[in-house]
Amino acid sequence: MLRLFSLALITCLIYYSKNQGPSALVAAVGFGIAGYLATDMLIPRVGKSFIKIGLFGKDLSKPGRPVLPETIGAIPAAVYLFVMFIYIPFIFYKYMVITTSGGGHRDVSVVEDNGMNSNIFPHDKLSEYLSAILCLESTVLLGIADDLFDLRWRHKFFLPAIAAIPLLMVYYVDFGVTHVLIPGFMERWLKKTSVDLGLWYYVYMASMAIFCPNSINILAGVNGLEVGQCIVLAILALLNDLLYFSMGPLATRDSHRFSAVLIIPFLGVSLALWKWNRWPATVFVGDTYCYFAGMVFAVVGILGHFSKTMLLLFIPQIVNFIYSCPQLFKLVPCPRHRLPKFNEKDGLMYPSRANLKEEPPKSIFKPILKLLYCLHLIDLEFDENNEIISTSNMTLINLTLVWFGPMREDKLCNTILKLQFCIGILALLGRHAIGAIIFGHDNLWTVR
Amino acid sequence: MLRLFSLALITCLIYYSKNQGPSALVAAVGFGIAGYLATDMLIPRVGKSFIKIGLFGKDLSKPGRPVLPETIGAIPAAVYLFVMFIYIPFIFYKYMVITTSGGGHRDVSVVEDNGMNSNIFPHDKLSEYLSAILCLESTVLLGIADDLFDLRWRHKFFLPAIAAIPLLMVYYVDFGVTHVLIPGFMERWLKKTSVDLGLWYYVYMASMAIFCPNSINILAGVNGLEVGQCIVLAILALLNDLLYFSMGPLATRDSHRFSAVLIIPFLGVSLALWKWNRWPATVFVGDTYCYFAGMVFAVVGILGHFSKTMLLLFIPQIVNFIYSCPQLFKLVPCPRHRLPKFNEKDGLMYPSRANLKEEPPKSIFKPILKLLYCLHLIDLEFDENNEIISTSNMTLINLTLVWFGPMREDKLCNTILKLQFCIGILALLGRHAIGAIIFGHDNLWTVR
Repeated sequence: MLRLFSLALITCLIYYSKNQGPSALVAAVGFGIAGYLATDMLIPRVGKSFIKIGLFGKDLSKPGRPVLPETIGAIPAAVYLFVMFIYIPFIFYKYMVITTSGGGHRDVSVVEDNGMNSNIFPHDKLSEYLSAILCLESTVLLGIADDLFDLRWRHKFFLPAIAAIPLLMVYYVDFGVTHVLIPGFMERWLKKTSVDLGLWYYVYMASMAIFCPNSINILAGVNGLEVGQCIVLAILALLNDLLYFSMGPLATRDSHRFSAVLIIPFLGVSLALWKWNRWPATVFVGDTYCYFAGMVFAVVGILGHFSKTMLLLFIPQIVNFIYSCPQLFKLVPCPRHRLPKFNEKDGLMYPSRANLKEEPPKSIFKPILKLLYCLHLIDLEFDENNEIISTSNMTLINLTLVWFGPMREDKLCNTILKLQFCIGILALLGRHAIGAIIFGHDNLWTVR
Repeated sequence: MLRLFSLALITCLIYYSKNQGPSALVAAVGFGIAGYLATDMLIPRVGKSFIKIGLFGKDLSKPGRPVLPETIGAIPAAVYLFVMFIYIPFIFYKYMVITTSGGGHRDVSVVEDNGMNSNIFPHDKLSEYLSAILCLESTVLLGIADDLFDLRWRHKFFLPAIAAIPLLMVYYVDFGVTHVLIPGFMERWLKKTSVDLGLWYYVYMASMAIFCPNSINILAGVNGLEVGQCIVLAILALLNDLLYFSMGPLATRDSHRFSAVLIIPFLGVSLALWKWNRWPATVFVGDTYCYFAGMVFAVVGILGHFSKTMLLLFIPQIVNFIYSCPQLFKLVPCPRHRLPKFNEKDGLMYPSRANLKEEPPKSIFKPILKLLYCLHLIDLEFDENNEIISTSNMTLINLTLVWFGPMREDKLCNTILKLQFCIGILALLGRHAIGAIIFGHDNLWTVR
């Protein structure tokens, strides 16, 4: 019954989109709902097949350590790609009807600055869209390879940058903007308002394509956290888009429409995955989903020209990465797994610890550890000689437990998600308020 | 040493391509060699990992039935996609240097009929290229899913058509040609020179995207045959392209350049796979390669506007499909495997047989079987009452053995490949010679 109602709703939304103005967005909502339903229907049906071919893992934070199917994130990713394929004719419907003459010759087409509003087929928009989907699909392929073969870090680290080549290519051809603005107070000294980074801007964008997928992949290990953070990021990005729709100048609306068109269906499939992956999880998402989701945000940031704003939304992930560095680079011993420890007796999660007695940290790093301890940024254990015995592992998840005390897995996940949401809102406010003050203007409003 | 030499050659070819006229093709040869080397290097290194995660099969046509890694075709497919990504800037290099102004605004670009030769960035060409790669990558994803999960026929049959959506979309926007020519002798009766198939032309193209991958997948089971037939098809398609380069009108050269650009690197990675998959095979290619390779030809045929010529090259595959139909649709009993039978004593392959005594064919089909027997198109076995006991299985492979007698596996494969090549050459000659007579003209030359 509910399913029939949803189908009717989807049909209405998509049909309506053919006749009205902001068509692409209305259709996106329809396709988002369709993506949710398809993913929600598929996940419970494919679990057994995944376990059968060896894609499963044990949930260490549950009594009895139940076996759950792994890599289920490939399902929402595949549904997303599928939906985005079917979406193509709807995005470009009005151009197809109005402007293509057919009949055997390529059309002479003039693409104006605001391609979305002109009446001639926007080939550049199509390239943009196709390069985005291509990049995402390559990322899914990479994720599946990683889930199947457990690729080594040095092999897989740079691969997302390869997946981003079509994207950078389209960026080069369509925009070629490689300068960044200089804050107002520095303009007087540097005698210019912007710096052209040239090739380095492409290196920066490739780095973003490497960073976003990996950063989501390392803030993981608690039921629902991988999907949850992506849902929060998607909502924040949509809020930012909404700001531009309601008050931004015309020139920026196109970019944010593109962003919303990619993110709304992503939100749909992610919500369905969240339903099955949240505490108590019945499936694991796998690297595939983390890479795929991270790349969605990288793509949107790069092609929507707000990669710096997008990185602001990733502050918790960036903090988690920087905070992890001492262990990732072996300055402090790093146990194989750094997930919080599950205590079967009270059912709560406790920070996991690295033993520093057997394997002491680099001696220069000891005072830093003590400083972090004073700042309540890690939890240390001392013996009678005031020597460090152990430290809590350096991940945002363990830090949350150090700050707020032991808690149940779902509460832990929700706490981190709330943190992410609040930081994101503050970052957006900061970007548009303080940004306007520092640079003297903002693309939402002007101060001077 | 050889590797160093090859690297130098690749660099030269690619560097040279920046300065000279037919740049895309020269670079394609460079990337083809690079693809060959990368694939050849990777295949022996990944075999063990594939076996470890359960992707292996037994070679039934060898003494002792050795275990070989399966789905290795994913390697050349991934290398191909990788190469095609890096290729993008080289194809569009001259446009990038000459025409894009960069500096923050989208360029007003005019795309002329012969986009490849104009000096303004050909967004439509980029969409075409991206949609082709996107379609191929989706096919690879589908192939991997099939190799992992052994999808059911009814689930996977229509999926290649979904993968082809971006392709059809670009076809609609860029060309929109949906009419087919009518043979000259029928023009008088029908009073027109062409018929517009409209929507049906898209159904036809989607069917081609379904047919090509599946047809290669069912002409399989002998060491080297899957790759071998694709190499033969690639060479035939390149010969056809060469015909157009040397004597075709200017308007068709673009399409055939596009075709060669996609096929040359494909030939490179396929030759490397052939090295490891030919008799005696050390790896199996898996469905991934069959789907991927079939889709390469479908894509080239559709976007290059010679889908009908391409289908002529697929005559052996079409014949194999039609010939298999009685068994596929259960008119004649179909054993689970129809591979030819290996005889350990003499090391030769014999036609495998379906038992018609226990499970007789539909009675209407018996006279047809006898007719086929008279035409030497199957081998039947009779008992003393002249009742049919068994028939050779209806595949092109078994038919070859019926015609030419038992032979070793490599000879069997080579015989079929030679057949494919000869039929292909005849088909090309026929298409350009007889085609010109029937239609009164051909796009290579004119008769009237």
